[in-house]
Amino acid sequence: MAMNVSQKLIKNHLVSGEMVPGTEIGLKIDQTLTQDATGTMVMLELEAMNLDRAKTEASAQYVDHNIIQEDSKNPDDHLFLQSAARRFGLYYSRPGNGVSHPVHMQQLAKPGKTLLGSDSHTCANGCMGMLAMGAGGIDVAMAIAGEPFYVKMPEIWGIEVTGRLPDWVSAKDVILELLRRHDVKGGVGKIIEYYGPGLEHLSAMDRHVIANMGAELGATATVFPSDKEIHRFLKSQDRGKDWEEIVADDGATYDLNEEIDLSTIEPMIAKPSSPGNVVPVTAIAGEPIYQSYIGSSANPGYRDFAIAAEIVKGKHVADGISFDINPSSRQMLTDLVKESHIASLISSGARLHQAGCNGCIGMGQAPATGRNSLRTTPRNFPGRSGTREDSVFLCSPETAAASALTGKVTDPRTLDMKYPKVKEVSRPSIDDGLLQKPLPMEEARNISLEKGPNIASIPEMSPLPDKLEVPILLKMNDNISTDEILAGGSRVLPYRSNLPEISKFSFEIIDDTYYDRAMEIRDVTGHALVGGYNYGQGSSREHAALAPRYLGLRVVLAKDFARIHWQNLVNFGVLPLTFKNDSDYDSLSQGDTILLEDLRTTIQNGKEVKVTVKGTNQSFTAVHALSERQIDMMLKGGLINWVKARHKKEVKGGI
Amino acid sequence: MAMNVSQKLIKNHLVSGEMVPGTEIGLKIDQTLTQDATGTMVMLELEAMNLDRAKTEASAQYVDHNIIQEDSKNPDDHLFLQSAARRFGLYYSRPGNGVSHPVHMQQLAKPGKTLLGSDSHTCANGCMGMLAMGAGGIDVAMAIAGEPFYVKMPEIWGIEVTGRLPDWVSAKDVILELLRRHDVKGGVGKIIEYYGPGLEHLSAMDRHVIANMGAELGATATVFPSDKEIHRFLKSQDRGKDWEEIVADDGATYDLNEEIDLSTIEPMIAKPSSPGNVVPVTAIAGEPIYQSYIGSSANPGYRDFAIAAEIVKGKHVADGISFDINPSSRQMLTDLVKESHIASLISSGARLHQAGCNGCIGMGQAPATGRNSLRTTPRNFPGRSGTREDSVFLCSPETAAASALTGKVTDPRTLDMKYPKVKEVSRPSIDDGLLQKPLPMEEARNISLEKGPNIASIPEMSPLPDKLEVPILLKMNDNISTDEILAGGSRVLPYRSNLPEISKFSFEIIDDTYYDRAMEIRDVTGHALVGGYNYGQGSSREHAALAPRYLGLRVVLAKDFARIHWQNLVNFGVLPLTFKNDSDYDSLSQGDTILLEDLRTTIQNGKEVKVTVKGTNQSFTAVHALSERQIDMMLKGGLINWVKARHKKEVKGGI
Repeated sequence: MAMNVSQKLIKNHLVSGEMVPGTEIGLKIDQTLTQDATGTMVMLELEAMNLDRAKTEASAQYVDHNIIQEDSKNPDDHLFLQSAARRFGLYYSRPGNGVSHPVHMQQLAKPGKTLLGSDSHTCANGCMGMLAMGAGGIDVAMAIAGEPFYVKMPEIWGIEVTGRLPDWVSAKDVILELLRRHDVKGGVGKIIEYYGPGLEHLSAMDRHVIANMGAELGATATVFPSDKEIHRFLKSQDRGKDWEEIVADDGATYDLNEEIDLSTIEPMIAKPSSPGNVVPVTAIAGEPIYQSYIGSSANPGYRDFAIAAEIVKGKHVADGISFDINPSSRQMLTDLVKESHIASLISSGARLHQAGCNGCIGMGQAPATGRNSLRTTPRNFPGRSGTREDSVFLCSPETAAASALTGKVTDPRTLDMKYPKVKEVSRPSIDDGLLQKPLPMEEARNISLEKGPNIASIPEMSPLPDKLEVPILLKMNDNISTDEILAGGSRVLPYRSNLPEISKFSFEIIDDTYYDRAMEIRDVTGHALVGGYNYGQGSSREHAALAPRYLGLRVVLAKDFARIHWQNLVNFGVLPLTFKNDSDYDSLSQGDTILLEDLRTTIQNGKEVKVTVKGTNQSFTAVHALSERQIDMMLKGGLINWVKARHKKEVKGGI
Repeated sequence: MAMNVSQKLIKNHLVSGEMVPGTEIGLKIDQTLTQDATGTMVMLELEAMNLDRAKTEASAQYVDHNIIQEDSKNPDDHLFLQSAARRFGLYYSRPGNGVSHPVHMQQLAKPGKTLLGSDSHTCANGCMGMLAMGAGGIDVAMAIAGEPFYVKMPEIWGIEVTGRLPDWVSAKDVILELLRRHDVKGGVGKIIEYYGPGLEHLSAMDRHVIANMGAELGATATVFPSDKEIHRFLKSQDRGKDWEEIVADDGATYDLNEEIDLSTIEPMIAKPSSPGNVVPVTAIAGEPIYQSYIGSSANPGYRDFAIAAEIVKGKHVADGISFDINPSSRQMLTDLVKESHIASLISSGARLHQAGCNGCIGMGQAPATGRNSLRTTPRNFPGRSGTREDSVFLCSPETAAASALTGKVTDPRTLDMKYPKVKEVSRPSIDDGLLQKPLPMEEARNISLEKGPNIASIPEMSPLPDKLEVPILLKMNDNISTDEILAGGSRVLPYRSNLPEISKFSFEIIDDTYYDRAMEIRDVTGHALVGGYNYGQGSSREHAALAPRYLGLRVVLAKDFARIHWQNLVNFGVLPLTFKNDSDYDSLSQGDTILLEDLRTTIQNGKEVKVTVKGTNQSFTAVHALSERQIDMMLKGGLINWVKARHKKEVKGGI
């Protein structure tokens, strides 16, 4: 059967399930990437699993998010991550090397491989003929430990690319045009696969731009073929031998079909405050701006900075404009310096920042209140820039540079100049010190994890007891969000590597006595929670399951659960149950003690669990929705213990 | 009479007093500089004074401290400062242009002039044959408004410089050697004046390094002659016409004398946690390091970065070292890029940060807990790096670069290489857009101040009433510090431009009901405070006087006052009184109401003030220590009103 590239990639990695859209498949993972903001918990999970060494072909730990270092927490995290990378046999990219996605592309990405990353823009490396996907931290930890990644088989959406981009229009305008057409949910449950004659005119880095913002379309992955251009790119990185050709078979088909003619695209811009809020630049030209920001994984290429440099060369940016340059990797920065592009940018009035994610994730360079900021970054959700009342537009480097010169939103085609042709560097400054290589196994085993005062191991977690007799510490209403379970923000986030500390903020907004009450009985009985409909909606943060579990949570009874939080509870060994009859919710009160007996046998033998309210004659039926794999995981006390058991590690007691 | 350079500078600017060490003199101020962290309050003070236009020859507002922008507060401050600079006729240096001191030196410094700045390292420009001094915010506001600066006539300390620095030893080692000899109080009450044949071998920027850290010796100012080297420097900046020769007369003498022979100096290093804790590098060579940091106003020159670049060129820094490069000005960064030094630094593994103060004032690049950080910055006070348990060493760029290569404290003379000769750029990239020039007066008058939501004007303050009948809201013990009056730290500091908000933190540590109780009677009677000995010790922050004044504080009765806080109270119209008999302190209780009658006449006619305790028959004598000038200021309601009156502006009522 003729196959497209996505199908080939999936088929070659399928370890369970059928390739039928919507059904669960298990995929072997060849490579992983973790960044520092999510990576510390992943490394603590690997420690808790007693992992000896990464089972993947290549796993890399990048430091790119938290590199401002206003106090010791970030640098302590960096040292911890470096020691963990050494201990577990990972690559380590230190602060200053750049953003994970372009660095991974330059150093490790290989056509034909799968890549799972604890960063939503992991999909960017789909430009290399890889199946590259973002996932939660523990999913990546599992992949590093050699476990498959489970996902619903997506539909494959084929986009045929024809024509050639006009002057002043670049890859960013292509993906913005697709966001204009399909908005931020258009790609949900789909892999977007690009093919067709137009690809000949899109470089590997152009494709990175397009693949990166597949995340903004909501797609599971974006896939490009591995063609001659990818061969050229790998050869320029001295990695020609890593290339293999992977293109769609003649006659391959797609579940959905679309065409995009590059020659018809014009400069596009996403208005505040959604990447899907796209209009042509002409529609808002003339709006005054405060900031023009070049960089991030959504425009990481040498070309993206060089074209901006050529546009502003010999000129000054408009009075009072903050023109921020955020290089994406040390290697590209070196080349941009050598080719005088950085000199052009600085002379024009630019502020040059260290290589990393920086402003893209609100770590510096926040705009002034209510002032317009033009950015080449992938997202403009409200407040993401760091400024609550922000006004962020997403555009190409051409549009951002042109607007910096004029001080207002400017269609770059209206500049009085010829479109500068930027030549890629034929021999990039390859830096083999960019990624510290994994240590040999014997050496790695002697490494101990370096934990600063704010980094705490995940404690051992006990298997599911056969009998639970637990008080209900909170009875909650409908639509409790993970923000209410465990808030984000600058007060709480610094404790992301410290479960004992971050758990103190659990349910603080709902009932600030919860922490004390839970701790009092944590090692005696543990406790239960009761929720209404849509329990655990919102952010996917795994801490919202892990922190209450740390405080002794064993079971949550709710009318129903938000999908990701339900998964997180299961992953960390908390039993999520729904009421067979929702009216039983009313019979429960905060302070009641519930009794669940023969629990281990019961959940293995069926979906129903009998719940008795102590001191009354009442009992009712609750229901679990665990798969066989998940039942096994639950019995063992969660994913970490499950992996330990797979590797024949002893599971002792614990919280 | 033969005069030294310091005497010439003082004599030419003397408007009051005699040049007798220890007595108060008034000096005409030609130039001012303000930075953003202190400048917002200065600009609000100018607004409150109804200043129309700066009366100085040149005043510049720099943005170099708060340039990370994690939310809207910093960028809102920048816009406010830019609008204030335009309104009041100041130069404005936007974020990214660099640190105030080297930029001022390049663009505005003029031999023979006085410079007052709201930054303690303002003394750096003493390298240009100027009298350059740091001062509090309102002192600088007064200078901008054309008022003299009052200071005790310092002793002049002549240091004769002989010999020539050996290879691998540079200006930083000279000032570290002086700190080794005299420690951090050795310069208190003195102007340090350098002269002698050794100056021939110290460039203008070398002298900047030495003058800058005169602040660490505690000196009032550091003065170098304006000689041929200063002429060369100014010519290289296209400002040759700004030069005039100012050297000591033959036969000039000094109050104190010392010699330093450059040829005997070796690489020096200040150990944690004081700039005076200096030893030769050899004494601690081999200590492992975590970070090597090049930059700041203490090593701001092209040479300082170029020598580091030459040392690491073609090599890699040691595994895991954070090698941070913090350029000090856009102009020098441009030249360093053009001359390939930045390429050498980045290729060796450096992290390149935007031009500004950054890590020097704890704004990023904090080291990991307890790890050794080698820095070319001027200060290593505990915690200043941002990390509470820090371990910061101060050294030359040569020592920092050598140590980055080896991963441990390294005497650069032990590197297996020839000392690289760094050539100054003969034609620096002069950037005339670096400083936005003052607007013409008519245009300036049309500018309104741009105030983000966190910037609030200083309200009008009422003159001293003739009768005060005020309750004592707090009775405090000895040694109350300004930290207890108004805390610093990241919770309070963001409100430095917002008096109504920051005043909510007043006395919070001592009695958190103070704010509410004060606000209740603020517009009815106002209130009094009672303190013991050494009231207001510690930091010089003017908010510690301004915030309680905003809440209605009119009089403080104490056993005695710390000098600077006393001055700040007077500046903001709060009457500081001491007890004639300390035992009267015991007769007062919190909650008592005190009565002061005929107050305006009384303080003009003598030092004693009668204080009656309402509802009792008690009264006692208190004493004021105001000078004639200060009595006038007090009657008018503080410095701001006093300036308004000088410029014939109406003073209405107010708080």
